[in-house]
Amino acid sequence: MPARLAELQAELRGLYAELEPDVVAVERVFFQVNVRTAMSVGQASGLAMAEAHTRGSAVVQYSPNEVKQAVAGDGRADKGQVQRMVQTLLGLAEPPKPADAADALALALCHAAHAPVRSRVAAASRAR
Amino acid sequence: MPARLAELQAELRGLYAELEPDVVAVERVFFQVNVRTAMSVGQASGLAMAEAHTRGSAVVQYSPNEVKQAVAGDGRADKGQVQRMVQTLLGLAEPPKPADAADALALALCHAAHAPVRSRVAAASRAR
Repeated sequence: MPARLAELQAELRGLYAELEPDVVAVERVFFQVNVRTAMSVGQASGLAMAEAHTRGSAVVQYSPNEVKQAVAGDGRADKGQVQRMVQTLLGLAEPPKPADAADALALALCHAAHAPVRSRVAAASRAR
Repeated sequence: MPARLAELQAELRGLYAELEPDVVAVERVFFQVNVRTAMSVGQASGLAMAEAHTRGSAVVQYSPNEVKQAVAGDGRADKGQVQRMVQTLLGLAEPPKPADAADALALALCHAAHAPVRSRVAAASRAR
């Protein structure tokens, strides 16, 4: 596990250096039933968030329901629906696979949908 | 949260650079009831393990029961017992506070107790 986490950290660092993202969107997992899964998700997402913050990228988090609502208009959409909506919205020849790749793209689309509202709220707060 | 994780990561890196540990012992949490706590513990322990592995320190994990068994002879010892045993074993003038500091010292003592057995098993496996 330590070796896998170190590898993940190095790969994330490489991706961030290559892509120089302004924003990193991370799934916020609250309702994970399995504690062991929650630990693992925490370990990976912690690395993603710490590295992003250290390099100066903004970090935003969305719950799975927010993501499903944003791309499929239904917070309880299933994995197939999310895959098909991501395919449609991005004009892909076929649905992204595996389902985790579709989830990652859905998270990016969710932020793209929320970002204009977020920046208007931030601008309005600054103007006050 | 991203800023706090980045700060934790930087502090861990500083401590590892200062102390150059051969081994980093991390608590393995399986039975945490609260999913939110499990996520947070995962985020912090993931950083500790990834950084340790990257710098070449060995990483070992012990469950809370193993730690309590090693220092207090009872896997279900309470926090007070652990604090008093850590004080006794290390010859401290008073119990370490907060309880988390005692837990960290107990984890180190647990590894100190297990390490000779681990290295004998490893040597025997190599000799085969």
